[in-house]
Amino acid sequence: MKKTSSESQIIISEVMMPQQANVAGNIHGGEIMKLMDSAAYATARRYARTNVVTARVDELKFHLPIFVGDLVMCTAQVVYTGKASMEVAVLVDVEDLETDGKKRALTAFFTMVALDKKGRPTQVPSLVCETEDEKKAFEEGKIRYESRKK
Amino acid sequence: MKKTSSESQIIISEVMMPQQANVAGNIHGGEIMKLMDSAAYATARRYARTNVVTARVDELKFHLPIFVGDLVMCTAQVVYTGKASMEVAVLVDVEDLETDGKKRALTAFFTMVALDKKGRPTQVPSLVCETEDEKKAFEEGKIRYESRKK
Amino acid sequence: MKKTSSESQIIISEVMMPQQANVAGNIHGGEIMKLMDSAAYATARRYARTNVVTARVDELKFHLPIFVGDLVMCTAQVVYTGKASMEVAVLVDVEDLETDGKKRALTAFFTMVALDKKGRPTQVPSLVCETEDEKKAFEEGKIRYESRKK
Amino acid sequence: MKKTSSESQIIISEVMMPQQANVAGNIHGGEIMKLMDSAAYATARRYARTNVVTARVDELKFHLPIFVGDLVMCTAQVVYTGKASMEVAVLVDVEDLETDGKKRALTAFFTMVALDKKGRPTQVPSLVCETEDEKKAFEEGKIRYESRKK
Amino acid sequence: MKKTSSESQIIISEVMMPQQANVAGNIHGGEIMKLMDSAAYATARRYARTNVVTARVDELKFHLPIFVGDLVMCTAQVVYTGKASMEVAVLVDVEDLETDGKKRALTAFFTMVALDKKGRPTQVPSLVCETEDEKKAFEEGKIRYESRKK
Amino acid sequence: MKKTSSESQIIISEVMMPQQANVAGNIHGGEIMKLMDSAAYATARRYARTNVVTARVDELKFHLPIFVGDLVMCTAQVVYTGKASMEVAVLVDVEDLETDGKKRALTAFFTMVALDKKGRPTQVPSLVCETEDEKKAFEEGKIRYESRKK
Repeated sequence: MKKTSSESQIIISEVMMPQQANVAGNIHGGEIMKLMDSAAYATARRYARTNVVTARVDELKFHLPIFVGDLVMCTAQVVYTGKASMEVAVLVDVEDLETDGKKRALTAFFTMVALDKKGRPTQVPSLVCETEDEKKAFEEGKIRYESRKK
Repeated sequence: MKKTSSESQIIISEVMMPQQANVAGNIHGGEIMKLMDSAAYATARRYARTNVVTARVDELKFHLPIFVGDLVMCTAQVVYTGKASMEVAVLVDVEDLETDGKKRALTAFFTMVALDKKGRPTQVPSLVCETEDEKKAFEEGKIRYESRKK
Repeated sequence: MKKTSSESQIIISEVMMPQQANVAGNIHGGEIMKLMDSAAYATARRYARTNVVTARVDELKFHLPIFVGDLVMCTAQVVYTGKASMEVAVLVDVEDLETDGKKRALTAFFTMVALDKKGRPTQVPSLVCETEDEKKAFEEGKIRYESRKK
Repeated sequence: MKKTSSESQIIISEVMMPQQANVAGNIHGGEIMKLMDSAAYATARRYARTNVVTARVDELKFHLPIFVGDLVMCTAQVVYTGKASMEVAVLVDVEDLETDGKKRALTAFFTMVALDKKGRPTQVPSLVCETEDEKKAFEEGKIRYESRKK
Repeated sequence: MKKTSSESQIIISEVMMPQQANVAGNIHGGEIMKLMDSAAYATARRYARTNVVTARVDELKFHLPIFVGDLVMCTAQVVYTGKASMEVAVLVDVEDLETDGKKRALTAFFTMVALDKKGRPTQVPSLVCETEDEKKAFEEGKIRYESRKK
Repeated sequence: MKKTSSESQIIISEVMMPQQANVAGNIHGGEIMKLMDSAAYATARRYARTNVVTARVDELKFHLPIFVGDLVMCTAQVVYTGKASMEVAVLVDVEDLETDGKKRALTAFFTMVALDKKGRPTQVPSLVCETEDEKKAFEEGKIRYESRKK
């Protein structure tokens, strides 16, 4: 079975509330990481049509602080697949609703593993990459996947 | 100043977690209402570029129950504007990630009021309706607005 | 089986905390809607002595903003009954504990449906209205019920 | 200035939700303690008309377990006053909405201290006890207050 | 079966966040009580190796206010055992991470009861007190236990 | 100014509750990531004695699933310092309170940046590594730091 990278895409979005603030009054980094994990989970589960778990997170980078009242959008997309694993790229954009356009706030790669009913790793559909960007992302995912195996 | 109905559209989406369940194990209706209120807030605030508050909610209908693990998408769009008030239509769609397509779960109309820095109602941009659907929604919003005034 | 409107009454009350604030620092409208939904749920469940779900919410109006530290009281009472449905009037009063008396902050009508063990709509007790106010509320509920059916 | 014990009474009530459950599936004792603390806070703040803090909790007893879906009612009332301190009796009753009447689930005594704007202890109104029960509760509070001082 | 007091010790620790604040902006006393209850629960459950419930809380004293950003450490240790009950001393220390050393903020005694699979009280291991402090704490626990029985 | 790696160590620990569960009933990976972020934050803030923010997370690996009721301990320690940045190693151990010893469940490296009062990066104390393990961890941190710079 095969699926395209673009049909795996899911966007999780939320308005940041005061109860998500950290000690300094900005949004708690851990809250955003939780949101990214949910987006990776939803994307991988829809792609594999089975239960999935997070196996690892790499290169999670905070580019910009996020504030109470901001609209946060997590875009998650499967960019590489192993046998039972899927690498999901998660991009977080942030929009100040009263002023202007959205900006990239975080990026990360989540490795998700598909599990069958008994909790054992199970095969996922092969990824079909259609655009040049998707093909490049797949090649990069493969390099990361193989360097981690070592 | 004028703005189109379509550029006001915001989608808020979330994966439903066990902590959002009610006593019977489904998702708490109040949790969904809170999500819809956030979507209406974000849409009206982006449209008016100022602080907004919820003035009323009408015809909020639950068409389908929502379950833990479902992906919930709230689409909010300004459909009618008065002087300082905006009527926002909020549609909630739900997707079971392991099986199939999304279904309409709730609908409602939120009336939001724009406030200036001192908390007084302030004028909002006039709504430009481009499509036939938008024009029809505007006329219906006008009827609701006028019947509530009485 | 019959029950009076007054014996269905339940009051849900809570002190508003900072984690229930919205972006502007007041209490999030969605938090109050969640509280109202809980009050309607408790009232209808006690009235019907079975599981109940929210079917719709009408004419939910915010009369006053609510602040952190306020005591919020939601009074819910069954005002009209159909076969399997109950209309519950929910009144929200708010009290600033350091200064003075309580004020009406929100009102709404919740339509709740009674479900049997298999999740099918099930008959609810007939409502006995004793006071003039209860009789008037019943007649108004009947008008709303019939206009929604169309 | 004087106030009666009965006018200090506040009832905080809530329907218990799955997110308040402990590891065994019942309601987390800590959640109920938090609710009791809120009730004691509201009662003492309304009585003293100033900010208050919890100084100590004594004889907090769990008589019955509480379950998801139960309606919990915390009744708090000032029963004894020192110079800047108030002893608040908190009684927790619980009602299974589908079956029968309410039962006493917990009891405790909270000692609250009134603070002025600078955070220093400040005098509270003298307590007027009208009924025999209130007079007895006052005498018992006095004994507890004096035995704690030693 | 026997166990030492020291091997029962568990430390629960957390950084205080804005969503745990009360109306005055300090940390909500109820949040700390919830944390203490979790520590007592973990300690008693590890000691008894079975499910446990809180039966009562005595002499819970707030010595210092706690602020957003503070590191809170709850140290819980079994100090006395009856047949099915364990008295757990819970000490709360607080550390301002930017300045200096930790200070004692709260103390309390939690009485926990061990339950078997059917929810009936079940025997707990006898407590072995090794140090002079542990022996003294045991004797004091015995006095409290016996005075409560009356 | 200099500080040792060992004096930076902070342990954050918590009993996992049902409200932290994911769709499958285990503990939500995002909840653990939030806990790890808090531990890294507390450690870096105590080390630098100033406000800190998370800049990136690398090699976050889930070794074992975590369940409701487990005691989770996050041990965080500064292992490498740049000019304004600190690399914090976060180790998560998990203990089933009814059965046996603790097991390693997750590991990760958090890069934290120290900020002065105006939010600009500010110098942190130099790290003193005393043991062989600390010296090795420092060298490995240096390699990661330099490879990320490219």
